This record gives sequence, C-alpha cells and structure tokens, in this order.
Amino acid sequence: MTYPERVRIVEVGPRDGLQNEPTTIPTAAKVALIEALADAGLTSIEAGSFVSPRWVPQMADTAAVLAQLRPRPGLRYPVLVPNLQGLERARACGVREVAVFAAASESFSRRNINCSIAESLERFAPVVETARAAGLRVRGYVSCVLGCPYEGAVAAAAVARVAEALLGLGCYEISLGDTIGTGTPLAARRLVEGVAAAVPLERIALHFHDTYGQALANLLACLDLGVSVIDSAVAGLGGCPYARGATGNVATEDVAYMLRGMGIETGIDLEALVDAGLSITRHLNREPASKAARAILSRRQAAA
Amino acid sequence: MTYPERVRIVEVGPRDGLQNEPTTIPTAAKVALIEALADAGLTSIEAGSFVSPRWVPQMADTAAVLAQLRPRPGLRYPVLVPNLQGLERARACGVREVAVFAAASESFSRRNINCSIAESLERFAPVVETARAAGLRVRGYVSCVLGCPYEGAVAAAAVARVAEALLGLGCYEISLGDTIGTGTPLAARRLVEGVAAAVPLERIALHFHDTYGQALANLLACLDLGVSVIDSAVAGLGGCPYARGATGNVATEDVAYMLRGMGIETGIDLEALVDAGLSITRHLNREPASKAARAILSRRQAAA
Repeated sequence: MTYPERVRIVEVGPRDGLQNEPTTIPTAAKVALIEALADAGLTSIEAGSFVSPRWVPQMADTAAVLAQLRPRPGLRYPVLVPNLQGLERARACGVREVAVFAAASESFSRRNINCSIAESLERFAPVVETARAAGLRVRGYVSCVLGCPYEGAVAAAAVARVAEALLGLGCYEISLGDTIGTGTPLAARRLVEGVAAAVPLERIALHFHDTYGQALANLLACLDLGVSVIDSAVAGLGGCPYARGATGNVATEDVAYMLRGMGIETGIDLEALVDAGLSITRHLNREPASKAARAILSRRQAAA
Repeated sequence: MTYPERVRIVEVGPRDGLQNEPTTIPTAAKVALIEALADAGLTSIEAGSFVSPRWVPQMADTAAVLAQLRPRPGLRYPVLVPNLQGLERARACGVREVAVFAAASESFSRRNINCSIAESLERFAPVVETARAAGLRVRGYVSCVLGCPYEGAVAAAAVARVAEALLGLGCYEISLGDTIGTGTPLAARRLVEGVAAAVPLERIALHFHDTYGQALANLLACLDLGVSVIDSAVAGLGGCPYARGATGNVATEDVAYMLRGMGIETGIDLEALVDAGLSITRHLNREPASKAARAILSRRQAAA
C-alpha cells in the first residue's frame, strides 16, 4: 500500500457545516471561525454560498463574511454558486474560486436543485465557462455518490458520468459526496476505482459524511488509490437539509489526527484546529462532534 | 486485499462497557441487555467480572447476572477473573470461559493491577492452568497496545512478548487492546504484523477504543492481515477507570454496519442490535454513542 505523502484538506465547515443550522449565526462568528481555521493551517476554506437566501437563509451573509476576511496569500475561500447570478455576486466579492454542484441520482437532483442531472449540467456550463474566462477556478461537487435517500444504491458508472461531465465543463477538481453517509469501505474504494476510469485520480476529492460512523474508514480505504484531497468540517459540523438523517461531515480533527498518525502531511496544527472548532461550537452551545477534539479537550482539562 | 469471509464479534458492552458507569445498574437491566444481545445474534458476550467490588462496584452482581441468563447452546458468556479466587467464583456459576488481563506497559500494569507485567503473568499462570484443567477456555487481554497514558508510545515487540506469554500460559486467544484509543491505522497494522511474528493470526483479536474516532479505520487496516475476531461494545459503551479520557469501545453497531457493507458475515441482526443498545442507553438516560445506531433510529422515526 502506498499512501500519499501529503493530503490537501478542503475545510467545508463554514458552508456545508453551517448551512443547515436553524439559528442564525452572526457574521462575526463565521468570520472568526474562518480566520481561526486559516490560523490552524487550512488553505482551502469554503466560506459560503450565493444561493437564494429563501432556500439557505444561513448563507445570506456570505458577501459580508467575505468582505471581512483578512486577505492571506495562498489561501482560497471558495463559495458555492448555483447559477450566473450567483457567480456575478461571487465575482463582485473578489472570490477566486467557486463551486458548482450536481447529483449522481435523478431523484436527489430533482428534489435538491429542482431539475434533472442533464438540466443541471446545462445550467452549469455557462457558469463554469464565465468563471474560467474571468480567471476563476471552478470545483465540481457530485452528491449521493454512495447512496441516495430516495433511490438507494447508486451505480459508480452514474457517478463517473456526472464527474466526467463536470470535468468536461472545466472543473479542475471533482468532489465525490457521500451525502447520506451510508457508504462502507469496499464500496467507497470501488466507487473511486470506477470514477478513476473517467476522471484522473489527481482530480478526485472525497467528501464523506459520517452519518453511520463510516467516513474515516471509507477515506482510509481510498487513500492508497492515489486520492489526496479530502473535504471535511471542523467539529464534525454539517448535514444536508434535503436528506433526512444526513448529519455531519467527517470531522476535520479526526481526519487530521489519522493522517498525522500515518505520517501524511496536511500542514494543520491540530491544537489550533480544535480551538477553531470551539470558536463555533461554543456559539452553537454544543460539544464538538469530533471524537479527536473531545479527547484533546479532555486531555487539556486533565492537564489544567 | 483479502478480507475474512466471516468475523466473530466479541461483545464486551455488559462488562467493559458498563464497569465504569458511576450509577448502579440493576441486575435485571444487565440481564435484559445480555439477552437482547444474544437475540441479535451475538455468540460471545462478556457478562461481567469477578474482581473486587471495592475496585469495580458495578460488577459486584456478576454471579446474579449469570444465574439469571437463559442457557443457550453455542453461546459463551466469558467473565474476567483476576486470580484463583475469582476463578473459583466463576466456576461456581458454571462459567465455561474466563479472561485474564495483562498490560503491555509497566506503568499501566502497576497502576491498573498493582504489579509488574512479569508478576501479573506469574499470578495468571495458576489461574489459566486451573481453568484449563477444569475444561474452561481462557482468553487473554493485553492493554495499552497502541499507547499508554503514562508512557506514551508502546513498542510492538513489548506487546508481542506479553501476547506470546499469555498464549504460552494456555490462552486460546489474545485480545489486543488500544485502551486509550490513540492508535491510527498504520500503527495498528504494524502492531498486528509485529504480534503475528509471535502469535498466530487466528489467535489474535482486536479490541479498540474509539477515543479519537479512529477505531473503525484501525480495524479496517488490520482486517486484510487475517484477523477475524473483533471486540466491541453495543452503543459504544465503555471506558477505562484508570485511563483518563479513555472513553468508549468501538460501537458494535458501527462495526456490524461496516462488515455487512463489506460482505463480511457476522451473524448479527443490525436492527435487533440497535434495540439491544436502546435497552441499556434508555436506562443510562443517554443516546447511543454509535452513529450507525443513531442513523437507524432517525430513519425509524422518519418512517413512523
């Protein structure tokens, strides 16, 4: 088994992690979270989305969040954009990277973004083209890659088709989302092998939710295939408003702890990362969902 | 990679899982838990321990628990015994399997069982001999195999020495305990490879705590080496009274979910297992620590 020497972690807590929180989180708290994540060594931090505030009210202040972030060379703050209007709002904020999102299952596509997979790709084509013409990088998400809440099993070939299409539109990286977290290690591995037939491995990122506690094992199962980009959310924040029970991205702390133990470089300061998580979970009035974070906090308490 | 066709799960919830609970759990609740676990298909269920009730008051009623269990052919209810006196009490209850426990780290051995590793092995020698002469099977635990709360790193060679000694005394199986849950996948794999130089792989069981969220990934990392016995606790119960922050065995539900997804047979009915977990977590007035259990419960609620 050959593992990558280095893994790039894409922190999705401020967006995927918070978008479904029912209580409004002040802009200042989001800014503080993102700055703390940057202090901890994260270099890709999804900062928000320019979707309709009717659908995702928690992300209504993305422009304000972006305006308050301290510019740091080398750091990327991608945002989700559903259409050209969203892209224009992102560009007005000086964003240098955006993300578009399609599903691997027709039913989920219809319920989540109200159109078929093919229609969503058609809709994204001018978004990606315009973004790239303006010098922006575009990331593509594919959801439901290991299962759909409405259809159950999803074929790797279906995921590969959508991933290939997004790559063809001009996305530089395709993030494979186990949106409902039902995947298990061999399925995850076979998925990546299947998608790799259509998309180069160095263009694939893994975005696994921990609903059934499987995310870390699923990541491990794919890491020796040549994938070296992992999406995760500090404190295990997150969920999907359109997939019942789809709680929690895999926690960045747990991923960073595992990779550090395996000698894989991430550039993350784990103690500072735990502090970043605390900055938002204190606000949400709950414990971090990350077990590594809890263990580190318990160790700190014991030392104090 | 070749995974085992079948994994035997040793359910340790009623003993390792409950021994550190601060409030007294009624005997009837323990009996109900064990019966529910047997109903769910578990065939090895650690039912208690005959250690001093001064040290582990929660296990003081082990004889009463055993007396109330419905005999089932093919099922084993092992109990922990620290010495000959404990063994005699276990035999008086008709127990057919006992377990002895040593540590891989000197400091932990002294703090946990108040003697050196060598002294503990000397003490266990007549226990194992007497048990085997009486027709009992004896299992051996080694704790701190991937780290010690007092010494930090623990060498695989040190674990291998203790494991080999326990095997030499007559234990049929050696359970390797990541007592404080600090291990990560490559370390777990190297540990098993190291121990396998001294103990046949089919004699090795994995007993990982999920303190840092790594247990399932660590199990996965060892499964293609030829290990096919996993210790786990329903609802992620557990902890170690002598290792601060050592909370929670890996949850049986999460392990069973992963193995089922990988096509590995366990004989476990996952829905019934979730019910078994509920029978005790309702009593403890908290949610199951198993994410798979929570997801299944959330799905049930949605369907109702």
